[in-house]
Amino acid sequence: MSEKKLRAAILGASGYTGAELVRLLSKHPHVDIVLLTGDRRAGDSMGDVYPQFGGLDLPDLIAIDDVEWAGVDLDVVFCGMPHGTTQKIVQGLFHKTGHTLVDELIMEHTEDYIAEIKKPVKVIDMSADFRIDDANTYAELYGHEHYAPALQDIAVYGLTEFARDAIKDADLVACPGCYPTGATMALIPLLQAGLINPDEIIIDAISGVTGAGRSLKEGNLFTEVSTGVHAYGIATHRHGPEIEQQLAKAAGRESKDMLVTFTPHLAPMNRGILTTTYVQLTDGKTVDDVQDCLEGRFNDEPFVRVLPDGQMPHTRHVLGTNNVLIGIAADRRPGRAIIVTAIDNLTKGSSGQALQNMNVMFGFDEKTGLDIEAVFP
Amino acid sequence: MSEKKLRAAILGASGYTGAELVRLLSKHPHVDIVLLTGDRRAGDSMGDVYPQFGGLDLPDLIAIDDVEWAGVDLDVVFCGMPHGTTQKIVQGLFHKTGHTLVDELIMEHTEDYIAEIKKPVKVIDMSADFRIDDANTYAELYGHEHYAPALQDIAVYGLTEFARDAIKDADLVACPGCYPTGATMALIPLLQAGLINPDEIIIDAISGVTGAGRSLKEGNLFTEVSTGVHAYGIATHRHGPEIEQQLAKAAGRESKDMLVTFTPHLAPMNRGILTTTYVQLTDGKTVDDVQDCLEGRFNDEPFVRVLPDGQMPHTRHVLGTNNVLIGIAADRRPGRAIIVTAIDNLTKGSSGQALQNMNVMFGFDEKTGLDIEAVFP
Amino acid sequence: MSEKKLRAAILGASGYTGAELVRLLSKHPHVDIVLLTGDRRAGDSMGDVYPQFGGLDLPDLIAIDDVEWAGVDLDVVFCGMPHGTTQKIVQGLFHKTGHTLVDELIMEHTEDYIAEIKKPVKVIDMSADFRIDDANTYAELYGHEHYAPALQDIAVYGLTEFARDAIKDADLVACPGCYPTGATMALIPLLQAGLINPDEIIIDAISGVTGAGRSLKEGNLFTEVSTGVHAYGIATHRHGPEIEQQLAKAAGRESKDMLVTFTPHLAPMNRGILTTTYVQLTDGKTVDDVQDCLEGRFNDEPFVRVLPDGQMPHTRHVLGTNNVLIGIAADRRPGRAIIVTAIDNLTKGSSGQALQNMNVMFGFDEKTGLDIEAVFP
Amino acid sequence: MSEKKLRAAILGASGYTGAELVRLLSKHPHVDIVLLTGDRRAGDSMGDVYPQFGGLDLPDLIAIDDVEWAGVDLDVVFCGMPHGTTQKIVQGLFHKTGHTLVDELIMEHTEDYIAEIKKPVKVIDMSADFRIDDANTYAELYGHEHYAPALQDIAVYGLTEFARDAIKDADLVACPGCYPTGATMALIPLLQAGLINPDEIIIDAISGVTGAGRSLKEGNLFTEVSTGVHAYGIATHRHGPEIEQQLAKAAGRESKDMLVTFTPHLAPMNRGILTTTYVQLTDGKTVDDVQDCLEGRFNDEPFVRVLPDGQMPHTRHVLGTNNVLIGIAADRRPGRAIIVTAIDNLTKGSSGQALQNMNVMFGFDEKTGLDIEAVFP
Repeated sequence: MSEKKLRAAILGASGYTGAELVRLLSKHPHVDIVLLTGDRRAGDSMGDVYPQFGGLDLPDLIAIDDVEWAGVDLDVVFCGMPHGTTQKIVQGLFHKTGHTLVDELIMEHTEDYIAEIKKPVKVIDMSADFRIDDANTYAELYGHEHYAPALQDIAVYGLTEFARDAIKDADLVACPGCYPTGATMALIPLLQAGLINPDEIIIDAISGVTGAGRSLKEGNLFTEVSTGVHAYGIATHRHGPEIEQQLAKAAGRESKDMLVTFTPHLAPMNRGILTTTYVQLTDGKTVDDVQDCLEGRFNDEPFVRVLPDGQMPHTRHVLGTNNVLIGIAADRRPGRAIIVTAIDNLTKGSSGQALQNMNVMFGFDEKTGLDIEAVFP
Repeated sequence: MSEKKLRAAILGASGYTGAELVRLLSKHPHVDIVLLTGDRRAGDSMGDVYPQFGGLDLPDLIAIDDVEWAGVDLDVVFCGMPHGTTQKIVQGLFHKTGHTLVDELIMEHTEDYIAEIKKPVKVIDMSADFRIDDANTYAELYGHEHYAPALQDIAVYGLTEFARDAIKDADLVACPGCYPTGATMALIPLLQAGLINPDEIIIDAISGVTGAGRSLKEGNLFTEVSTGVHAYGIATHRHGPEIEQQLAKAAGRESKDMLVTFTPHLAPMNRGILTTTYVQLTDGKTVDDVQDCLEGRFNDEPFVRVLPDGQMPHTRHVLGTNNVLIGIAADRRPGRAIIVTAIDNLTKGSSGQALQNMNVMFGFDEKTGLDIEAVFP
Repeated sequence: MSEKKLRAAILGASGYTGAELVRLLSKHPHVDIVLLTGDRRAGDSMGDVYPQFGGLDLPDLIAIDDVEWAGVDLDVVFCGMPHGTTQKIVQGLFHKTGHTLVDELIMEHTEDYIAEIKKPVKVIDMSADFRIDDANTYAELYGHEHYAPALQDIAVYGLTEFARDAIKDADLVACPGCYPTGATMALIPLLQAGLINPDEIIIDAISGVTGAGRSLKEGNLFTEVSTGVHAYGIATHRHGPEIEQQLAKAAGRESKDMLVTFTPHLAPMNRGILTTTYVQLTDGKTVDDVQDCLEGRFNDEPFVRVLPDGQMPHTRHVLGTNNVLIGIAADRRPGRAIIVTAIDNLTKGSSGQALQNMNVMFGFDEKTGLDIEAVFP
Repeated sequence: MSEKKLRAAILGASGYTGAELVRLLSKHPHVDIVLLTGDRRAGDSMGDVYPQFGGLDLPDLIAIDDVEWAGVDLDVVFCGMPHGTTQKIVQGLFHKTGHTLVDELIMEHTEDYIAEIKKPVKVIDMSADFRIDDANTYAELYGHEHYAPALQDIAVYGLTEFARDAIKDADLVACPGCYPTGATMALIPLLQAGLINPDEIIIDAISGVTGAGRSLKEGNLFTEVSTGVHAYGIATHRHGPEIEQQLAKAAGRESKDMLVTFTPHLAPMNRGILTTTYVQLTDGKTVDDVQDCLEGRFNDEPFVRVLPDGQMPHTRHVLGTNNVLIGIAADRRPGRAIIVTAIDNLTKGSSGQALQNMNVMFGFDEKTGLDIEAVFP
């Protein structure tokens, strides 16, 4: 490994996924953070925006429109901005980087951003921008035509455990949504192994409030969400189709032929997603088969741990880590199993997985910068 | 209504259900609290045990074994003690009260408690002691033979909305468990109407920590349960069979032929149960049918409110109240619906419903002492 | 008491103090809520804005500018709006009501609101608008000249326990701030009795997040305030001068000669203010004198309870109530005492006290509608 | 630095300070954890006791009486047990280690533990056992004669920033209490510099619930402490005299001549202590002098950060870290200042500082294993 460190930018560093990435990257031995953007807080230091970083040596936040891309020497760009806001910028970053497909499609409006990028960069996107394969589905879910459809073809969906080879060579990685990360991790191997019925999957998830980001919505006020729980976005949450897209691949189906029940809930906690999944076993299959399958699949994975029979994960046991805990139980109803997974939505569910993907892309050990134990209690 | 107030005892007043009942009864215009027991805190005033009651005029706590039943003039006894601990006492209370069935079955060990009760009392039990019809099922679930099997026959299962007539004449009411209250309220009418498939019911519930009572268990420490969520008692929680027993009746089946999936979760909040139920509609039935059925059924109920299409309940909106909120949504998968209910586990899920039942038993307006709005935020 | 109920308006009903007042007034036997304003949510029902009220029969919210004052028959108006926004409106309400002083001072800009009010109304203001006696101090603290200076003279500062006689005859009551309510309750009698040194008072307070209202500020997001505490507004919080003004009166001084140390903190809880006050005893006085003084002063007060020696109040024990708990301890340093008070900032600290004042103004028993026990746990 | 790692034991690893130390030490590049004791959970793996550690390679917990000290090769022993329980054990560990003073004083009851320790070890104690210099004061505070009074003389009070030289050569370091760490950090330099009056110090602190450890007390249940705050141990908390002892040294006084006001509060959060200190400036001194003094003193400290004028620390900004944040403000009253510090009670307030001290004792860079950013939100 050369002594020269990777030069990294974080677009959208004033949001929670951006801040989480700063937390992790600032301790990564092979990365220097050289650019931070944050429109609402442009001009402020990260210590102003997140006082916990006041002791770190970090660049000040600048507005994304003020970045002089030609003058910045970058190896990797992390995007942590709201969906739809950086598609053109990302497309611009790829201009003249050797992607003929992209070059041909560059539109005028990207020119502002591209000028003369010094060298090709790799982009790791934490938004929903490049997760959905199908342009129409994207437009339906996110309310606008995709601004960089050519990139949809080259983007790799970065659930690391199931896409390492593709990630290694990818120029653009789309990190999965937080709910899909927790929901699909255990289901993909079970569908691939034919252990469960793809038509009878119910995913019930409970998330912490950081999942809503730092946006000023009444529903995110302390006073509104402490002391209780509720379900939201029932049958309409955008992560439903994303989950279906990934599970369809595992089941060897078209996305349109995959429908799962998905109900997110909000609980009064900062971080964590607990996913309780109800599945119907294929004829003759047992809960032990499920346990064996998942243990076998994840045995060598650095971040995934299948709990022994009888144990169930708590989100608090993965808080601040990139870990995934999986517990399995037999249902009261014969032929059915219940699978529970716990992740930290900001870490494995977003910025941690982004860093894990960076490690894969640049040939570092996958745990570099992510070898962290949960802060509990 | 006579001017003489009912004389009420609360057995187990140092626990949370006992305290909740004190909160409610102390404002009931037709009740005097004349006896409070609490073994661990015998000798203390309620103000010592619960400082919020320091300004009320209440009897001190005494040990249950120190109650001189012959000398206490009582109309109604509420039991809020751990399951199995008051069966004999309750049986004793009924001795020589005219229940031939009971009289015949009185065993020696009850004599300590009975002596000469002044007059027949009505008993409202908030424990699990008299909820399970079948003695074997009770023994399996609670780990001991029932100590007062004769009373199982006369006990009325007190989900008020579905048992008013029986409660009116009952001498012993077994208040439903907190999870069963939230879980069965909406399902009973749907099963009765044949709108849903009884073999495909999945009940996913999230509870606050008061559900665990005031017992000193590591898992109930603030430090252990704040900042995260987890599932527990998957497929083994005692409320599962209780739910099945009640749903079986609604479906016109034997209990043994009714199996439902039931997964409780614990969230970092004091009160509240949110129940998310996944159901399969009967052929040709729609989500509108579900909405209509529940609106029709609960329209005149003082405590149950079916939310308009598109709204979903929060537990915080019923905090401290006897209310039940019900929301209904179509699933992504055709022919399926998702029903969400919110209750306060200590109020409608226990002490509030106990008081509601008392109102029915003694002919008071059902909202007396329960006409309370949620404390939110 | 006549059978006709008071007709009440709540201006600013979509905020938390407004909602708290709806919670309380909706159970008051002698009040009908006939008008609710809420500019941001005009047109919505209270059930839309606060789902817990969905079962109540309440008027919809309207914009304050859309109120046709001439057509509304009102007895009492509660103002729960941000400071400075209702001074003119309140002045308008008093126009032609017989207050010569006010009439003379009516300015043009109030005419919009006054037209022909049917009859004199009484106004209970929960904002800071009429709390500060001195116009210059008000202007300094709140950043603008007072819009209704004439009313400052007729407004009664409504810390009920110390102003009953004035409140009885008042047309305009300015309810104290939440911090001043908790901070001055115990200090006033001690200063009046000469038991403590007015120059050595340190008030350290911890508040819940509802104190910040329902406004969309980053600092009020769940994610920003859960899991930690901090101090804010040290030496600059507007309630500091308000506290000084009231303590000065108790000490027989001019406001300008009274300076106290006041440090508010924010804790991750919805409601409650705990005030820890450090005082120096006058020569020869003891902590027992403090205990005796406060017990004597508050013995007959319906909402204030002085705890016995050795007990200390928790905010959770007053949650949702109008109660004030006071605990007293000797300091490690001789000649000094520590006094701790607990209130619910939304109830006794705002809407509860407003209702208490209404009861005084209209001759009801002071506990009417406020005879509530804390919801704990 | 040799390649051989330090061999470390943690006595009391099932408690929260023990677990926090495992979290930190498991990432320390120069330490192997070779022994973990935990009486209540003897025989269990750390993954059973703290599921977050299920993926680590750690020794199982054993009962302290089952440790075969002669057979364990250890370099450093951390004690995280309740006060009074390890004094004899620690004394045993020092037997025949060359401390004549200790050797002479070894009593029979220590022989169980000592036998033939392979080599001298260094001991870092996180309990209160060796913090108090004066044997009588210890006995008064902790309710028993000290069991190893000889060690009191050799123990170094380990507030690292003020005792580095002594810690370097120490065999036994007594880590400060959590409250004293937060309370004295800023006061010591100010007293040393004569900037504040030692007779007028008021320390008001708010702690998270982990400060109470993992013990099963009703007052530590989630249900008892969520949703509110309270003060406790006013004027009687054992950390008061510990604070006075350390401040006395800084002020050049005898402990008995130093009295400070100290009031701890409990807030519904897991971690963190916020200390708000009220001080009187020496004649002619200003708040700027305070700011300058503290900035100068802590400028080169790796873990202490003095915030610029106008900023105030939040406990959440140090969560999980060894950092200390200090903010300074002028009081409303002239000649007085308010100083606020934030620490994580489990990290800098206990296990983090223990590790910091280990780094000093063994010549490692002080930040080794402690270069962590806060998990926020």
